[in-house]
Amino acid sequence: MRGAVLYVPGDVRVEERDDPKIIEPTDAIIRLSATCVCGSDLWPYRGIEAVDGPSPMGHEYAGIVEEVGNQVTNIRPGQFVVGSFFASDNTCPICQAGYQSSCINREPIGAIGAQAEYLRVPLADGTLVATPDLPSDDLIPSLLAASDVLGTGWFGAVAAEAGPHKTVVVVGDGAVGLLAVLAASKLGAERIIAVSRHEPRQQLAVEFGATDVVTERGDAGVARIKDLTGGLGAHSVIEAVGTQESMLQAIGSTRPGGHVGYVGVAHGVELPGKELFFSHVHLHGGPAPVRRFLPELIDLIWNRQIDPGKVFDLTLPLEEAAEGYRAMDERRAIKALLRP
Amino acid sequence: MRGAVLYVPGDVRVEERDDPKIIEPTDAIIRLSATCVCGSDLWPYRGIEAVDGPSPMGHEYAGIVEEVGNQVTNIRPGQFVVGSFFASDNTCPICQAGYQSSCINREPIGAIGAQAEYLRVPLADGTLVATPDLPSDDLIPSLLAASDVLGTGWFGAVAAEAGPHKTVVVVGDGAVGLLAVLAASKLGAERIIAVSRHEPRQQLAVEFGATDVVTERGDAGVARIKDLTGGLGAHSVIEAVGTQESMLQAIGSTRPGGHVGYVGVAHGVELPGKELFFSHVHLHGGPAPVRRFLPELIDLIWNRQIDPGKVFDLTLPLEEAAEGYRAMDERRAIKALLRP
Repeated sequence: MRGAVLYVPGDVRVEERDDPKIIEPTDAIIRLSATCVCGSDLWPYRGIEAVDGPSPMGHEYAGIVEEVGNQVTNIRPGQFVVGSFFASDNTCPICQAGYQSSCINREPIGAIGAQAEYLRVPLADGTLVATPDLPSDDLIPSLLAASDVLGTGWFGAVAAEAGPHKTVVVVGDGAVGLLAVLAASKLGAERIIAVSRHEPRQQLAVEFGATDVVTERGDAGVARIKDLTGGLGAHSVIEAVGTQESMLQAIGSTRPGGHVGYVGVAHGVELPGKELFFSHVHLHGGPAPVRRFLPELIDLIWNRQIDPGKVFDLTLPLEEAAEGYRAMDERRAIKALLRP
Repeated sequence: MRGAVLYVPGDVRVEERDDPKIIEPTDAIIRLSATCVCGSDLWPYRGIEAVDGPSPMGHEYAGIVEEVGNQVTNIRPGQFVVGSFFASDNTCPICQAGYQSSCINREPIGAIGAQAEYLRVPLADGTLVATPDLPSDDLIPSLLAASDVLGTGWFGAVAAEAGPHKTVVVVGDGAVGLLAVLAASKLGAERIIAVSRHEPRQQLAVEFGATDVVTERGDAGVARIKDLTGGLGAHSVIEAVGTQESMLQAIGSTRPGGHVGYVGVAHGVELPGKELFFSHVHLHGGPAPVRRFLPELIDLIWNRQIDPGKVFDLTLPLEEAAEGYRAMDERRAIKALLRP
């Protein structure tokens, strides 16, 4: 089969890879209808995260089940399924508490590589959620979004306790940040302030439910949020970048007793204990337990109540994955969908 | 009047200070029945926090109202009252959300100095809570404990979401840690693991409701907690020290999705963002909003359902405050009560 492989920073190639096979009796093989490039794929692509290439890439996927291992009982060939970037058994105490991305038996899909024609998904019964029927083609981008960016934005909003009567700030205007705006809106937030300097992203944020847009960053961004919230700060702030500046902006924008939901993968972040202590915020985040939200998100998409697929502003054949990486790296595209 | 003053690290003196007077119409003057030395007083005493001496010391207090300003309506002379270490109006949006120690009009009592015969309490209506009647003498240590250490331990337990069916770890065996054990017990925790190497403190922890005692610290402490919790970590961990080691021990001892409540005043703490991200914990803490809990805590003490005053294992006349500091610094005493 064909699949994307990162050799060294900046060098993604689509090349022949071995067809995946059932290894464990709990595995499934799916034929991908769509996959995509994640903001977190850019960390190794940019050399900020070490690359031990050639590495298969990609961890977002939706497609049709081809084959299942003989211990798989919930999922059957022919179904259209969506899964998350960590395979999880969905039965251990950590999964049962809703933290499937820290499942005691978790396996990272990124190490298997979903930017490909086919994908082996471990722990298929726990990991995959089937749609009610085969989806029409126009639903596929949204279902793919549920695999990571929507689920991650949603978790950010839940972790930040976005909801009715709340003012919510979203730091970060990547696909996750934009979908965190959508999540906060669906969760009933009264006011949603998107932080973005990019006009097309601002537009999409407003389309997803943002009521205000702030362009300032860092301390100026904090001051602007304070201005907009009677000097107090927001109730809920979602951090969707993962840098020191964005984390401090998120914490500084939150009122005492408020909640920061952080889903940007932390890179080089060191939180100053004393400032955190006196900020009085709640801090929660990490790799989103997307599996927790998948049934609900699939339902919202299936019933066309949300259209998260709008974050894909570039669609390419899988063969052109390298261009997808380049376009996102250069911020020419919010998110690139790849069609195998 | 007589009051304790810190000149330089290690040099506490009780000397003549001006009698406090009503400055603002919202002030009250109270005659202290008891005050005490706090673990946080040891930071400047040890020179770890800068001392701009001579500085009045102390922020824990209980006593009888002598005089009130002409805008005070809830509190009247003759009442026995308890207050917290931050004066707060109890009406601003932050107070109303339960974060009185971040009140937009807060004033630190520590800057006024409660280790003295009399104390001016700003924002008396919002800050002070009266007991139903004058307390008998044996209740005074417990009522004094409510002013800070009990309220702080209680907040730690609430922030860590200690409760039924939960395994709770308490890192730190000072008065706050010990009272966090008591709080977790009253909140219904199933299992409470105290981390302590000091036999008398272990005993008091058990008396307050600890079911297990762990003596290991740092990584060994984390490993021991994992052993005791089926490899998962505790649901709730209360951090009551404030050092880098204790914070990392607390985070490491918590299962993914679990809660860390941290109330040790952070000194030199830098939290590594990536480890925090992948730990999947909830982190909440800061200066305890003791005022939120005071009515409930006073009620529990008044009805003799809890006896937090047991943490005072040394009682001295105010004149001997210096010995109280020395005894706590050398860990000869858990907490020193001072009788003006």
